[in-house]
Amino acid sequence: MLIAIPDVLQREEALALGRAIASASWVDGNVTSGAGAALAKRNRQLPEDGEAAREARMTVQRALAKSPLFLSAALPHAIYPPLFNRYSIGDGFGDHVDNAIRVDPATGTQIRTDLSATLFLTDPSDYDGGDLVVSGNFGEVAYKLPAGHMLLYPSTSIHHVSEVTRGERISSFFWIESLVRENEARETLFDLDQSIQHLTIAHGAGDAEVLRLTGIYHNLVRRWAKA
Amino acid sequence: MLIAIPDVLQREEALALGRAIASASWVDGNVTSGAGAALAKRNRQLPEDGEAAREARMTVQRALAKSPLFLSAALPHAIYPPLFNRYSIGDGFGDHVDNAIRVDPATGTQIRTDLSATLFLTDPSDYDGGDLVVSGNFGEVAYKLPAGHMLLYPSTSIHHVSEVTRGERISSFFWIESLVRENEARETLFDLDQSIQHLTIAHGAGDAEVLRLTGIYHNLVRRWAKA
Amino acid sequence: MLIAIPDVLQREEALALGRAIASASWVDGNVTSGAGAALAKRNRQLPEDGEAAREARMTVQRALAKSPLFLSAALPHAIYPPLFNRYSIGDGFGDHVDNAIRVDPATGTQIRTDLSATLFLTDPSDYDGGDLVVSGNFGEVAYKLPAGHMLLYPSTSIHHVSEVTRGERISSFFWIESLVRENEARETLFDLDQSIQHLTIAHGAGDAEVLRLTGIYHNLVRRWAKA
Amino acid sequence: MLIAIPDVLQREEALALGRAIASASWVDGNVTSGAGAALAKRNRQLPEDGEAAREARMTVQRALAKSPLFLSAALPHAIYPPLFNRYSIGDGFGDHVDNAIRVDPATGTQIRTDLSATLFLTDPSDYDGGDLVVSGNFGEVAYKLPAGHMLLYPSTSIHHVSEVTRGERISSFFWIESLVRENEARETLFDLDQSIQHLTIAHGAGDAEVLRLTGIYHNLVRRWAKA
Amino acid sequence: MLIAIPDVLQREEALALGRAIASASWVDGNVTSGAGAALAKRNRQLPEDGEAAREARMTVQRALAKSPLFLSAALPHAIYPPLFNRYSIGDGFGDHVDNAIRVDPATGTQIRTDLSATLFLTDPSDYDGGDLVVSGNFGEVAYKLPAGHMLLYPSTSIHHVSEVTRGERISSFFWIESLVRENEARETLFDLDQSIQHLTIAHGAGDAEVLRLTGIYHNLVRRWAKA
Amino acid sequence: MLIAIPDVLQREEALALGRAIASASWVDGNVTSGAGAALAKRNRQLPEDGEAAREARMTVQRALAKSPLFLSAALPHAIYPPLFNRYSIGDGFGDHVDNAIRVDPATGTQIRTDLSATLFLTDPSDYDGGDLVVSGNFGEVAYKLPAGHMLLYPSTSIHHVSEVTRGERISSFFWIESLVRENEARETLFDLDQSIQHLTIAHGAGDAEVLRLTGIYHNLVRRWAKA
Repeated sequence: MLIAIPDVLQREEALALGRAIASASWVDGNVTSGAGAALAKRNRQLPEDGEAAREARMTVQRALAKSPLFLSAALPHAIYPPLFNRYSIGDGFGDHVDNAIRVDPATGTQIRTDLSATLFLTDPSDYDGGDLVVSGNFGEVAYKLPAGHMLLYPSTSIHHVSEVTRGERISSFFWIESLVRENEARETLFDLDQSIQHLTIAHGAGDAEVLRLTGIYHNLVRRWAKA
Repeated sequence: MLIAIPDVLQREEALALGRAIASASWVDGNVTSGAGAALAKRNRQLPEDGEAAREARMTVQRALAKSPLFLSAALPHAIYPPLFNRYSIGDGFGDHVDNAIRVDPATGTQIRTDLSATLFLTDPSDYDGGDLVVSGNFGEVAYKLPAGHMLLYPSTSIHHVSEVTRGERISSFFWIESLVRENEARETLFDLDQSIQHLTIAHGAGDAEVLRLTGIYHNLVRRWAKA
Repeated sequence: MLIAIPDVLQREEALALGRAIASASWVDGNVTSGAGAALAKRNRQLPEDGEAAREARMTVQRALAKSPLFLSAALPHAIYPPLFNRYSIGDGFGDHVDNAIRVDPATGTQIRTDLSATLFLTDPSDYDGGDLVVSGNFGEVAYKLPAGHMLLYPSTSIHHVSEVTRGERISSFFWIESLVRENEARETLFDLDQSIQHLTIAHGAGDAEVLRLTGIYHNLVRRWAKA
Repeated sequence: MLIAIPDVLQREEALALGRAIASASWVDGNVTSGAGAALAKRNRQLPEDGEAAREARMTVQRALAKSPLFLSAALPHAIYPPLFNRYSIGDGFGDHVDNAIRVDPATGTQIRTDLSATLFLTDPSDYDGGDLVVSGNFGEVAYKLPAGHMLLYPSTSIHHVSEVTRGERISSFFWIESLVRENEARETLFDLDQSIQHLTIAHGAGDAEVLRLTGIYHNLVRRWAKA
Repeated sequence: MLIAIPDVLQREEALALGRAIASASWVDGNVTSGAGAALAKRNRQLPEDGEAAREARMTVQRALAKSPLFLSAALPHAIYPPLFNRYSIGDGFGDHVDNAIRVDPATGTQIRTDLSATLFLTDPSDYDGGDLVVSGNFGEVAYKLPAGHMLLYPSTSIHHVSEVTRGERISSFFWIESLVRENEARETLFDLDQSIQHLTIAHGAGDAEVLRLTGIYHNLVRRWAKA
Repeated sequence: MLIAIPDVLQREEALALGRAIASASWVDGNVTSGAGAALAKRNRQLPEDGEAAREARMTVQRALAKSPLFLSAALPHAIYPPLFNRYSIGDGFGDHVDNAIRVDPATGTQIRTDLSATLFLTDPSDYDGGDLVVSGNFGEVAYKLPAGHMLLYPSTSIHHVSEVTRGERISSFFWIESLVRENEARETLFDLDQSIQHLTIAHGAGDAEVLRLTGIYHNLVRRWAKA
C-alpha cells in the first residue's frame, strides 16, 4: 500500500524542523547506500550521530507514535531511526530498490525494510523537481507533499527522486519493519480496520457486527504478525 | 470448524431416504477403511455401485447444492460421492483420524479430506448409543442430530461412533475438499460472510461498508483458495 | 502487476471483431455479476452460448496463446472463456472487486480469478468516458487503450468503468487463474524472465549466467506454481 | 489446543497465593482491555506495578518454568508477565477475542498472543458461576478448575467468564507467544512429543524409532518455529 | 530426497523392455527440451506417439503403481507419461535444471515437475560413462543402477549425464508432480511412514502409538497436499 | 545447502588456535547434548565459561564477520557462541539430528538452528577417522577439511563423526539461525548473489541487468527474511 498521511507534523512544526537542521553540517548522502544505489545518488544527509540529527529524530519519532493513520497502515514492529536528507539544485536519486535488511545503529538489530517513508519538511512551493516517483504494480506515480505530510510506500517498489531544478527539498526518511510482512495482507487489515472504525461511529462499539469484525481483525493480525 | 447444519433434508425426506436404502443389501463397512481404521470399525455400508446407493447419493448431492449454510461453511472444491452406513446393536467405530486422501471412484481424482460430514437419516429416538464423538482442540463433544440434520467437522479431528445399544442408526457420510484447506482460515471466512449477510439485511447491499467488506472477503478467498 | 500488452490482436483484426459482434443481439450485463456488483453495473453483454460469442471467443483464445508477453506476465493455469461487453452512452460500472471464484460454464471447473483482462475492440477516438480506472496500492490510474491492446491487472484491485458520454466502447473481458497465485511473486518471475531474455540476446543462450538464472527461474516457478 | 494442566502450583500453594494477594488493593479490570472488551468486562485486577503483583508474578513464572506439560504444549517464546484478576458477586466478562498484540510493560517487546492461560487460585467450591467458557471450532465448553490447575487455550477463540453468583474467584491470567504460531501445527508437535515419550519409556532412548521420530520432531519445530 | 528404488521392474523384464524398444525407430532427444537444455543434449528418444512407446509406457506405468516404495517416497499426484532415451557412444547431456512445468500431451494438463525419475533398462556392465550425476545441496553424486532399478531425485537439482564411451544406455525417464510440493516436507513424511511401518511390524497395527502416529501422518499429508 | 568455506581462518592461525585451547582443561562433551544425542556422543568440550573458550570464541566470531562467502551463504540472523570439541582415539559421535532450538547462554535468546558449522582447527593429516559424515537428500558424504576451513550444512540433516583411530581432531562448532529459514530458499538467494557478482565483474555495477537482478535479490530477501 502506498498512502499519503497528512499532518504527521503540523505544517509550522515541520518547516521549523527543516530550518533547524538546515543550519547543521551535512555530508554526502552515500553513507547509507548499498553498492548499487551509490551510483545513482546525489544528495546530502545529516550525520546520524550529530546533535542536530538526534533531536530531530526524536521529534519525528514522537510524531509517529501519535499518528493513528500511520500505526494502522504500517503496523510497525521496528522503525529505523529517522534520517534526514537534502536535495539542492542538480541533486536527485536514480531508480533503485531499497536494501532488504538494515542494521539499527543504536541496537545492532536487523530491520527488514517492508515500508519506506518520506516525511516532507519543505513545501512543494519551495522547489521545482524533487518528485518522489514510485513505480509499482500499477504504473508510475509522482508525489510531492506539503510540509508535515508523509508518504508511506512499499520498499519492494522501484523509486527515484527526480532532479531538483530550483530551491531545496529537505525531508526525513526511514524504513519500517511491519508486524505484517506482506503488502497485500497489510492492506486487507487496513481496509478492515477502516470498516470497523466507520461501523463503530455509526452503530457503537458494542454493536454485534463491530464485535465480530474486531475478533476477525485480531485473528488475522495473529495469523500474519511476525510470520 | 464443527457446525451442525439443520434441515439439509427435510425430516420426512430424510426418514424416507433411510427407509428406502434400509431394504437394500448391505456389506461390511471395512470396504472403505484404511488399514488402521479397519481394526476399530464394526458397521455395514451400502455398496457404492448398487442402484440404491446411486439414487440415494443423488438425493444427498442435490440437497447439498441447495444449502447456503453448507456452501458458506465448507466452500467445497470437491465432494466425495456420499456413502451410507448403518450401525445396528453392538456396532460402533473406535477412535480414528480419517485418511488424508481419497480417490473419487467415479473420476479417479484425488480428494483431500478437509472436512467430514454425517447426514443423519434416523432420529435420535430411534436408537441408543451411536453418538458421533469428536475430540478436537476444545475437548470431546458428542453429537446425535435429528433426521435431515448434518454434522460438518474437520477431518483432522479424532472421532468415534459409540456402540449402539438399542435400535439402528442410518446415515450418509462423505468428505469434502474445501477451496480453503486450513480450518482456521475457513472459519474466518465463514464469520466474515455471516457479518456481511447481517449488515446487508440491516443496511442494504449497496452500503459502503458492505461493499468494502465484500471486497475483503473475495480477496481473502483469492489468497487462500486452492493454496 | 498491471501491464498493458500491445497488439494481442492487430488493430484491424480487433476492429473487425468488434464490428462483427456489434450486430449480434446483446443482453443486460448483470448476467455475470455477483450480488454486490449488480447494483453498480450498467452495460450489455453478448450471450455466452450464442454463435457470435463462440466464434469471437475462439479468436481471442488463439491470440492469447500466441502472445509471449501475456504468457510470461500471466503464467496462465486456466483462462475463463472470454466474454464481451458494450458500454453505450450513459453506461458505466461502479467501483467493485471481482468475485474470487468463477465456474467455467464449459467444464464446471472452479477458476480462481487472480488476474482480470480487458482487450479493447474499439479505439479511444470512438468514445468519450469509458475509462477503465484501477485503484491499487499505488493510487488510481485510468486506462483507455487502442483497439487490439489488452490491460492485464490484479483482480484484487478495486476498479470501475467511468460513464460513456459519447460513442460506444466494445471489449472482450475475462479472468485468469495463474500458476502463481501471489501478485508479487508473479512480478518477480516476470522481472527475472525479462532479465534472462536480455542477457540471452546479449551473451547467448549458452552463457553461464543465463543458464544459472534459468535454473533459478524454474526453481522459483516450481516453488510457487499451484501453491 | 485447549488443555487443562493439573498442579502447576500445588493446591495449598495456589490457595496461599490467592489469599496473599486478596488483601492487596485492587483496581478496575479495564486497565488492560482493548476498546471493545471494555464494554463487557466487570472485574478487578491487581495493579501491575505493585509489590503484591511483583511477588505473585514471580511465583507463577517459576512454576511455569518447571511444568513439562506446559512447556511441551505451549512451546513458549515469550510469556506476558502474569496478571491477576478477581470476580466478586455480579462480576463477569462477556464474549470477546483477546487482542492480537500486547506490549510487555517491562521490556517494551511486542508479544503475539497465541495462547491464553488462566491459573486458578481459588477452588470451584469457593464460588458459583465464574465459569471460563470457551467457544471454539468444536462448540462451547465451560471450565472451572481446582486451585493450582491451569487452562491453556487458543487466543483465537471467543470466550467469556459467566457471572459470579456466590463467593469469589481469584486467578492469574496471561498470554503466551509460542515458538509455533499455528494452533494445529503446535498440536501435531504435542502429539508427536507424547508418542516419543511413550515409546522412550517402553523401548529406551536409544531405540531406532525413538531416534528417528526425535529427528522428525526437531525438523518440524525447525520448520515452524518463529515462522 | 534422492532415493534409489530397486526392482521397479524385475531385471529380466527391464532388459527385455530395453531390447524391445531398441529396435524401434528413434529421434533426436531435443524434441522434449527447453531452449537452454537443447544446447547441452546429445541423445535419442523414442517418439511419444509411436506404438513401441505406447506399450513400453504402459509397462512402466503398471510397475510404478505396484511399487510401495515409489508411492511412499513420491506421493504422486500426476506422472508425466514415461519417455525413453538412449545414449550411444559420444552421447551425453550437460548440466541443466528441468523445466518447472510440462504439459501432459495426452490430457493437456500442466504438470509441475517436483521429482525426476530414471528407470534403467540396461545394466551398468553394458556401457562405460553414462553416469547420472546429481548436484544437490550435499555435493555431487554419480549414479548408475542395475536394470530395473530407478533413481528418484528432486527436479530442483542440477544434473547431467556423462558421456558414454562404450556400449549403450537405454532408460525410461519422466517427471512427477507430487501431492507434496516441498522436498523437505515429503522427506519428513517418508521418514514418518518408515517409522510407522517398523512399529507396526514390531507392535501390531492396533498399537496405541501406531494409531497416534498414523493420525499425525494423515494430518501432515492433509496440511501439505496440493498446497 | 552444504558448502565448504576455505580460509575462514588462515591455516597457521587455525592451528595456533587449536594448540592454544588444547592445553586448557576439557570436559565431557555431553554437557550440550539433547537426551537422545547423549547416548551416541563420545568426545570432550571446552567449558563455555572458561577464559580459553572466551578468547577462542572471539577469534572465531571475528573471522566469521569478515567472510563474505559465509555471510552470503548463511545470511546469519543469530550465531550461537562458538563451542570447541576434541575427538581423541576411540571418540566419535553417532547419527543424530541437532536440536531445533538452543538458548544463547549469554543473552537467553532462543536460536533456531537452521545451519550447523564445523571449523577445523587440526589438519586431516593429524588424525585418522574423525570424518564428518552428512546424510542428506542426496545420499551420504564424508568431509575432513584442512585447518581453517569450515563446513556449513543444514541442521536438518542426519550426521555423525566417525571414530578417530589415530591422533586427535580439534574443531570449533556452532549453529546459525539464518534470516532465511528454508534451505532451498537460501540456496536460491546464494545462487542469485553469485550470478550478480559475476555479472558485476563482467559488466559493471551500473549495468541495467545487474540493477534489475539486485532489486529481485532484495525483494526475495524481504519476502523470506524472518518469515
